[in-house]
Amino acid sequence: MANNAITERDKDFAQWYTDVVRAAKLCDYSSVKGFMVVEPNGYAIWEKMVSILDKKFKELGHVNVAMPVLIPENLLKKEGELVQGFAPEVAWVTHGGSKELEERLAFRPTSETVFCDYYKDHIASYRDLPKLYNQWCSVIRWEKETRPFLRSREFWWQEGHTIHATEEEAKKETDQMMEVYKWFHHEILAIPSVTGVKTEKEKFAGAEYTLTNEALMYNGVALQSGTSHYFGQKFAEAYDVKFLNKENKLEYVYQTSWGTTTRMIGGLIMVHSDDRGLVLPPRIAPKQVVLIPIGKDDRVFELAEQYKQELLKNDITAYVDNTDKSPGFKFAEAEVNGIPVRIEVGARDLAENKITFARRDTGEKIQVSLDGLDIVKYTQDLLETIQHDMYEKAKERRDALTFEAHNMEDMERILNTQPGFIHAMWCGDPECEAKIKEIKGCKSRCIVPDGEKIDDKCVCCGKPAKEHVIWGIQY
Amino acid sequence: MANNAITERDKDFAQWYTDVVRAAKLCDYSSVKGFMVVEPNGYAIWEKMVSILDKKFKELGHVNVAMPVLIPENLLKKEGELVQGFAPEVAWVTHGGSKELEERLAFRPTSETVFCDYYKDHIASYRDLPKLYNQWCSVIRWEKETRPFLRSREFWWQEGHTIHATEEEAKKETDQMMEVYKWFHHEILAIPSVTGVKTEKEKFAGAEYTLTNEALMYNGVALQSGTSHYFGQKFAEAYDVKFLNKENKLEYVYQTSWGTTTRMIGGLIMVHSDDRGLVLPPRIAPKQVVLIPIGKDDRVFELAEQYKQELLKNDITAYVDNTDKSPGFKFAEAEVNGIPVRIEVGARDLAENKITFARRDTGEKIQVSLDGLDIVKYTQDLLETIQHDMYEKAKERRDALTFEAHNMEDMERILNTQPGFIHAMWCGDPECEAKIKEIKGCKSRCIVPDGEKIDDKCVCCGKPAKEHVIWGIQY
Repeated sequence: MANNAITERDKDFAQWYTDVVRAAKLCDYSSVKGFMVVEPNGYAIWEKMVSILDKKFKELGHVNVAMPVLIPENLLKKEGELVQGFAPEVAWVTHGGSKELEERLAFRPTSETVFCDYYKDHIASYRDLPKLYNQWCSVIRWEKETRPFLRSREFWWQEGHTIHATEEEAKKETDQMMEVYKWFHHEILAIPSVTGVKTEKEKFAGAEYTLTNEALMYNGVALQSGTSHYFGQKFAEAYDVKFLNKENKLEYVYQTSWGTTTRMIGGLIMVHSDDRGLVLPPRIAPKQVVLIPIGKDDRVFELAEQYKQELLKNDITAYVDNTDKSPGFKFAEAEVNGIPVRIEVGARDLAENKITFARRDTGEKIQVSLDGLDIVKYTQDLLETIQHDMYEKAKERRDALTFEAHNMEDMERILNTQPGFIHAMWCGDPECEAKIKEIKGCKSRCIVPDGEKIDDKCVCCGKPAKEHVIWGIQY
Repeated sequence: MANNAITERDKDFAQWYTDVVRAAKLCDYSSVKGFMVVEPNGYAIWEKMVSILDKKFKELGHVNVAMPVLIPENLLKKEGELVQGFAPEVAWVTHGGSKELEERLAFRPTSETVFCDYYKDHIASYRDLPKLYNQWCSVIRWEKETRPFLRSREFWWQEGHTIHATEEEAKKETDQMMEVYKWFHHEILAIPSVTGVKTEKEKFAGAEYTLTNEALMYNGVALQSGTSHYFGQKFAEAYDVKFLNKENKLEYVYQTSWGTTTRMIGGLIMVHSDDRGLVLPPRIAPKQVVLIPIGKDDRVFELAEQYKQELLKNDITAYVDNTDKSPGFKFAEAEVNGIPVRIEVGARDLAENKITFARRDTGEKIQVSLDGLDIVKYTQDLLETIQHDMYEKAKERRDALTFEAHNMEDMERILNTQPGFIHAMWCGDPECEAKIKEIKGCKSRCIVPDGEKIDDKCVCCGKPAKEHVIWGIQY
């Protein structure tokens, strides 16, 4: 059976993760070191993420564009902090055809610079603002250590880039898009993430501030899953993006960017999956229901087909597994692939006027009488129950792995026993951040805005505390 | 007014094309030579193309994947013909971060090689076949001369890649996908394209044969718009892609690939647009209907809004232009952007219990009484009429620019007066192809399968003719 090959999650989490990715055929290594192939099952999850997020972005007034994938070195270098942040990770194109290029070109690591270069020639007055752009594409960052979905040299993402006539409006956009990522995690991915502000050290290169959405994996390691940056006028000054404001004076635009990536697929796996393979919340599962006919009776095939049609008509993605594999094999395959609901339509069950529903998340089997059964309503309700229960289960796990530290001994103890989200007060000094990082690489995940005052003193140095920070080890 | 800046189509076709692209804000040049920015209006057309084609591909059993964008030089070189065909146009990545790479990596010019490399480790027996993959991405080809949408160093496309257990099945796939491109052009883009087989000289590097979809622009120049390739076992041999067939013997797979690109946007423009700007067939127009309230009466705004809601509910993409521009300016803007239907909701018209519809394709204005008006039905019918009429008009133009040549004098005369699709017989000798190319670069567009025998003799050398070929000048 397919899931025989999956290492136990509690025995070796890293190996378990790799095994689930491979067993569910989500992605694979390629011949290019550090680059992944996103396979059909993995790409289908990404497509569903894209369709849901894209719809939301558009409802909020954003439009999609496509910017060039290559960026001239000079253009990239105009904003000093950005290039310092990304230079060590850039892939460089130096030859076009047989000729060496006069100036080398960077494969986009992120596109603030090209957007600025475009804005510059396309806005004149406040009437042209805001510009609310987004693009779906892949980027390259030349990482040393790579892991499927979590860290790879090429990954797929969306990058939103907007410019505004006022600081207030741009800040509102930065907030709003973080709310979208939070909504997406809580409502769609069933991941009870936390959001907050990055510290100076952890913010995006060149940003005035960065908001972040942080998810906690089953093993207590954090995964940054979506960031939203406010740039103020910094890039606008470097790239000379000006507009005539309402007072008819030239002013630099106020800018934001925000992005989230295929690493969310890794997050989905590490929050919800189990020793039998992938577990997907119904709202993000590309295939929500599998119908499995059991027995050679014509009626089992007819009924399975009839149910499929009814479910599809009501926007529930259902399919019938009509292959010549054994029922046991089909069950295992649907399990390893994370299909939320399995409906067994068996000859023996039908003789007793019933069918069987199986929940992927709990393994529970439910026999349901056909008398008065509304297959669509029943399935819809079950899918919603699963979505709800998966969120609650993930929240329980997150809460169980959420700690408070009042001093460095607490920090050490927690990080050496069972890491998680560690709430602790901080004085604001990067040196304390650096000292905490010495413990297993623990970093500040985010500052909690208006966070409760746990202590008066910094967890590290004991000086007066300024911020309530969530700390943790990260992927 | 926005369209003042558009050169007359009959005066300077090339300049007219560039003017329409710019005036309708479809794409723009970027700071990287030969690379384009696809702007929101252009990208919205591409998104609609993607959604329609993607749905069709999936109905036919294909699944999407994402392969690495970079290809090791060695891998690319394994199939000799392919690399010879593409080597002069490849962009090379030579540095990752600060380090020079041991082997340089090509930015994908096309992905047959990476797909083969993937197939190799993912199929064992005929039970694993067929694999029906597709990916949406951008590719780079280092062209010398570039033109918006038609030829640019980076462009966006889909590339379908499939492998099969039998020659028959793979050939059927090659045919089927060409039928999809033809359907898409005729039914969606309202472009009466022709399809056929490429000659040996014009086929895809490495293919056994190439099917092509050829559209004819308003000026009589042809645009290759979608190709489908049958590879036989050629790549399978080079990349060692084998499977156990039903007789339990190892056999190489049979392979296809097929693709179409953002250049179709260029085709749309050059077939349908006019001196007032873009004209879009309703089925591909991202925005199908604009409602323009005229006058300060509350009722014009209310009615426009009410109609918009009703149209949207029935999958007609409508919007209200509520900006503070003058009606004349709004009309011109909707025209230059190619919105198929404009509905003027004016205070004066309403006093007479009527509204006005304007067709973008013909400029016709139709006053319609509100008595018993079913706004959805009326608009739907009008959109379908426009779609139909645009196809017929394009077909008339294509037919008027379709010629027969019986000898080289005919060829020269036609090509020097008014180029178009030129039907003529051919002996099959590449030397004759080369001679015809000397006349204004005219190439064989395609061999017409089972084409009518126009003459017994080759149009060029007079030797016995083998094929009925369509010739033409191309973009």
